[in-house]
Amino acid sequence: MKIICSRNELMKSINIVNKAVPVRTTMPVMECILIDATSEKIRITANDMDLGIETTLVGQIIERGIIAIDARMLSEITRKLPESEITIEADENFLTTISCEKAVFRITGMDGDDFSRIPLIGREECVEISQYLFREMIRQTIFSISQNDTNKIMTGELLEINADALRLISLDGHRISIRRSTLEQESVSRRVIVPGKSLSEISKIFSGNMEDMVQIYFEKNLIMFAFDETIVVSRLIDGEYFNVDQMISRDYETMVTVNRREMIDCIDRSLLFVREEDKKPIILNIGDGRMEISITSRMGSLNEDIPVEKSGKDIRIAFNPKFMMDALRAIEDENVDIYFVNGRTPCVIRDEGMSFVYLILPVNFV
Amino acid sequence: MKIICSRNELMKSINIVNKAVPVRTTMPVMECILIDATSEKIRITANDMDLGIETTLVGQIIERGIIAIDARMLSEITRKLPESEITIEADENFLTTISCEKAVFRITGMDGDDFSRIPLIGREECVEISQYLFREMIRQTIFSISQNDTNKIMTGELLEINADALRLISLDGHRISIRRSTLEQESVSRRVIVPGKSLSEISKIFSGNMEDMVQIYFEKNLIMFAFDETIVVSRLIDGEYFNVDQMISRDYETMVTVNRREMIDCIDRSLLFVREEDKKPIILNIGDGRMEISITSRMGSLNEDIPVEKSGKDIRIAFNPKFMMDALRAIEDENVDIYFVNGRTPCVIRDEGMSFVYLILPVNFV
Repeated sequence: MKIICSRNELMKSINIVNKAVPVRTTMPVMECILIDATSEKIRITANDMDLGIETTLVGQIIERGIIAIDARMLSEITRKLPESEITIEADENFLTTISCEKAVFRITGMDGDDFSRIPLIGREECVEISQYLFREMIRQTIFSISQNDTNKIMTGELLEINADALRLISLDGHRISIRRSTLEQESVSRRVIVPGKSLSEISKIFSGNMEDMVQIYFEKNLIMFAFDETIVVSRLIDGEYFNVDQMISRDYETMVTVNRREMIDCIDRSLLFVREEDKKPIILNIGDGRMEISITSRMGSLNEDIPVEKSGKDIRIAFNPKFMMDALRAIEDENVDIYFVNGRTPCVIRDEGMSFVYLILPVNFV
Repeated sequence: MKIICSRNELMKSINIVNKAVPVRTTMPVMECILIDATSEKIRITANDMDLGIETTLVGQIIERGIIAIDARMLSEITRKLPESEITIEADENFLTTISCEKAVFRITGMDGDDFSRIPLIGREECVEISQYLFREMIRQTIFSISQNDTNKIMTGELLEINADALRLISLDGHRISIRRSTLEQESVSRRVIVPGKSLSEISKIFSGNMEDMVQIYFEKNLIMFAFDETIVVSRLIDGEYFNVDQMISRDYETMVTVNRREMIDCIDRSLLFVREEDKKPIILNIGDGRMEISITSRMGSLNEDIPVEKSGKDIRIAFNPKFMMDALRAIEDENVDIYFVNGRTPCVIRDEGMSFVYLILPVNFV
């Protein structure tokens, strides 16, 4: 095999597929990046068996062939080369020569035929959404997946399609996050659980451009994202997701409107008093026109008043400050509405149309 | 005690003295920052017994007094407050209230009288040098102090004053780094060994401005740096430093002039093949007009040619690439001159006037 490409194009392709390179594996060939120049286009692939990414490398094929090269080595070599023409040449013993200007690297590759290719998915029915929008939806929900493997379902997010509505939902037993977008076209109903890691990696590859779209395809236990010159295939998580809508009530006894930035800054200060070992809650004491936020730990205390618009009863309720912070940071509006029933039931932060909903369980306090 | 100051002034003072807050200590009061408002000015101090820093806080004293506050807590609270007026008030039980706008923090301080003040040094004879210049001299030599405590002297740098020349010298058994500057005025001769940590911390406080000066004072086993509103006092290391000038020869058999950036980029690429466990050298093969740089490890190999201007004999010599890199990075010139005697003796990188000198021992290779 012999190909020629520009350093920047190679770096771009490597950075895309690198997200699917496994950290540790029992199969060394899977720690490689596959360079496949057997057909007209140069295809670059990485696959950790849960997530596979394939992209096209712009370049010139001088001699057809295929080679697998240690991902870390290939990526570091490319990073340290100047922007210039790179030649990659592999012989029948997988000895690979990477040359750029006067630098000549020689490393040993592996047989590309031993590499597990990513599964093919039929490109029939698909859902299309803006890459930017989908990336934002992931960011706004990914923080409340469970970090704990005991309930596999909670380590993923529900991707739900219902007519022209696409929702991403995550929950970890203490809180629920929901984001909804409207699709341009109605689509077949779907409910699939996508691993959190896949969503998080894919969101790093998406462009920040509202106009760039991603096509989403479904197959039995797989989901495929196709965009630009790249396809990402992820395994789905088996099982039935929770009926989240049942858990969220529209009833409330107290509603406050608060400046999001002010509340974030105040909670950020309260985090000074929270150490891993003692999980102290923040106490919200809501009266007419003001919300007092306070926290007390063995290190000291903080008291702060924030102006709010309140309707309904006064209420005193406590939360894990980190959960409150995560939700407030995910929202983009200047002011947010928080709905309470009483001091022992969850609060809900949501907009009027429920395009975002964050439910947080309160904690006990003395 | 009660003082009022702006958040940014407080943050500035804390950031300066923070460099002398010990990480772990058996005396909790030394993990504090001392706020001393007993006289006209508010003085902020931290002291880890090797290094002490005191600076002035611009602010208003409402009630005279003194308090020691946990450095980490004070620094985090200040960081998270908005730029506004901060009031710090301590009562006779050391209960401290820090308030800013509507936020009120309460933490327990410690008795300021228990804090070990930094030693006073007479301000008689002093040496004056630009902060920027001294910071650069530290940066250009600090990397070759010994990280290893077995020979205490090598963990510091020799600060040598000889008439109007100030030199900083460091060595670690494999290499020597020397930087020399000319002082505006002649001064008494001095040879003191300053702990590397003190130099490194102090260089972080210096301004990047050529015109801002630092005054250096000496006392038996102490050195004091006075600049702006700050004084830094460091303990010196006892002992007799090496006679470094004896180790550096001006004789050579081969001299090459090379583009510094090209050589750095090439060595940087060679570092890909160096792992902690196997310290592979780079081999320089110098002939007429060209230097071939190569490295081979079990991961692969790199060969690269760099154009050079050579005078004298051809030579083949090997070095630890990291040591060569450190020296080249410390220099600012576009081209550097490297002097060799033979493959078993040190090379010397220096300018004509010896304002910088880097000596590096070669390594064996097959």
